[in-house]
Amino acid sequence: MSKFTIAIHGGAGTILKSMLTPELELSYHIGLQDALNAGYHILEKGGFSIDAVQAAVVSLENNILFNAGKGSVFTNKGIHEMDACLMEGKNLEAGSVAGVRSVKNPILLCSEIMQHSGHVLLSGQGAQDFAVLRGMELLPEDYFYSEFRYNQWQEIKDSELYLLDHKENAGGSDKKFGTVGAVALDVHGNVAAATSTGGMTNKRYGRLGDSCIVGIGNYANNKTCAVSCTGHGEFFIRSVVAYDVSCLMEYKGMNLKDACEKVVLDKLVKIEGEGGLIAVDTLGSYELCFNSEGMYRGAKTSDGINVVGIYK
Amino acid sequence: MSKFTIAIHGGAGTILKSMLTPELELSYHIGLQDALNAGYHILEKGGFSIDAVQAAVVSLENNILFNAGKGSVFTNKGIHEMDACLMEGKNLEAGSVAGVRSVKNPILLCSEIMQHSGHVLLSGQGAQDFAVLRGMELLPEDYFYSEFRYNQWQEIKDSELYLLDHKENAGGSDKKFGTVGAVALDVHGNVAAATSTGGMTNKRYGRLGDSCIVGIGNYANNKTCAVSCTGHGEFFIRSVVAYDVSCLMEYKGMNLKDACEKVVLDKLVKIEGEGGLIAVDTLGSYELCFNSEGMYRGAKTSDGINVVGIYK
Repeated sequence: MSKFTIAIHGGAGTILKSMLTPELELSYHIGLQDALNAGYHILEKGGFSIDAVQAAVVSLENNILFNAGKGSVFTNKGIHEMDACLMEGKNLEAGSVAGVRSVKNPILLCSEIMQHSGHVLLSGQGAQDFAVLRGMELLPEDYFYSEFRYNQWQEIKDSELYLLDHKENAGGSDKKFGTVGAVALDVHGNVAAATSTGGMTNKRYGRLGDSCIVGIGNYANNKTCAVSCTGHGEFFIRSVVAYDVSCLMEYKGMNLKDACEKVVLDKLVKIEGEGGLIAVDTLGSYELCFNSEGMYRGAKTSDGINVVGIYK
Repeated sequence: MSKFTIAIHGGAGTILKSMLTPELELSYHIGLQDALNAGYHILEKGGFSIDAVQAAVVSLENNILFNAGKGSVFTNKGIHEMDACLMEGKNLEAGSVAGVRSVKNPILLCSEIMQHSGHVLLSGQGAQDFAVLRGMELLPEDYFYSEFRYNQWQEIKDSELYLLDHKENAGGSDKKFGTVGAVALDVHGNVAAATSTGGMTNKRYGRLGDSCIVGIGNYANNKTCAVSCTGHGEFFIRSVVAYDVSCLMEYKGMNLKDACEKVVLDKLVKIEGEGGLIAVDTLGSYELCFNSEGMYRGAKTSDGINVVGIYK
């Protein structure tokens, strides 16, 4: 039987063992394992990678611990504006959503956009209108509420430094890039990638990051690999991160590991672009690569590998 | 003295000689030459490419003939929502705006975003709020009005095919991708790229195209080239067009001409992605490459070349 593999992340940043209680650490492990299992379950039945990555991301979006869907961070106006992207390596089909509110699972909206809109990228109120048209579930603002994220926002919402990430505000002690993502290879040889996020706490001015952008925060191509990123979005955009990994493989002949390390541990480090990415190739290899203190991550393969990790 | 070069476009698509009166054709030629001159004037005085591309794009945004700034197409709601992107090859700095209203020159807002927001990509009402904060000129909706675009919208606004490009609605006779863009090399060896558009007539659901996205519709890198695209945005997004040209040069060692032709005349053609792009490299070469019937275009170099064209 052909190989299959799924890898996931739940965000990267300054995640130190000293910052998590044993109970919270366990909750993260359970959340990551649940998401892995949700995707793996589809793959082992011969299902498609495009469905497996959605199942894994839905699981993470529904988990209040992660900054995507339920538990998304607060914008400067005290609301939740979410970005997501879904891409299929077989035919390079993609669907993305930017700055959408009220949609329970933005990654499922991406699937609707991919299949039914005739477009790739929808944004704002218009994207929500499209979700309604497609009969998707909308939820009141308080569904997305989490006390942890609310307190995080309260601490910085009146700051003059509102434009900056909480990284700068918290003096480096809370440098976290909350995003969730999944990449997978199925038995049919197809790769797929899914990424979803609530973005940056206290964000203003309709700021969009890399997560919703094909080729930047999320990319899949059966010729090379599938990639989902998490990190300081502005640096990831300027580096066109996900497609760069793919191009290094396709045009320079690098393998998955070398391509990921070139981008994350060399190119991004040089411009102080903190974060990481997960990737799979069509051979069944996976990479969980980051230049930050930690990344919530996991991988599960048909070869019997099952790993979940948080710290370096 | 070092070489300098500027190239511009005003959109691609089914542009046939039979569709333009001699008077209109002359007006397009004058508009393109004015934009070229505006950018060239800065370059010949030793100015920077980042300023030259903005000057050229401002000239095209202010010209009612082109689908950007004044003269932008109408959305399904009868308004104008504009996208733009600016990028500097020296340091990979970039600023982008998605779905903004009322801003006279979206490309100048990109410059403000690049320099003063701490972000790369701002969207919607938030982007307009940022423009106000930066003291930029906002204009009433009727500034952007053009009779031609209004009639174009009236023809299809009640169509069931609202999600499709007017390409399909007009049976192939009006397959136009209105965008403007400029790329330049200055005497200091820096390349830059600028792109601006009103998007797709009758667009809904906050649809965004490729023009506002770094690496897709617009890219600049002193290692390789500067690129500005125009075409069916959805295909350009899925192909990560602008960065693909750069990667083919950097990783495969192609020259500018071969890289542009590989992407536009081979890869895009295979997926029926109609459109084109303009590009310059750091040697002073330029390309005006398209797979459609026509592209409003021009180039002017320190070697004395001055070309303006519309048809194949």
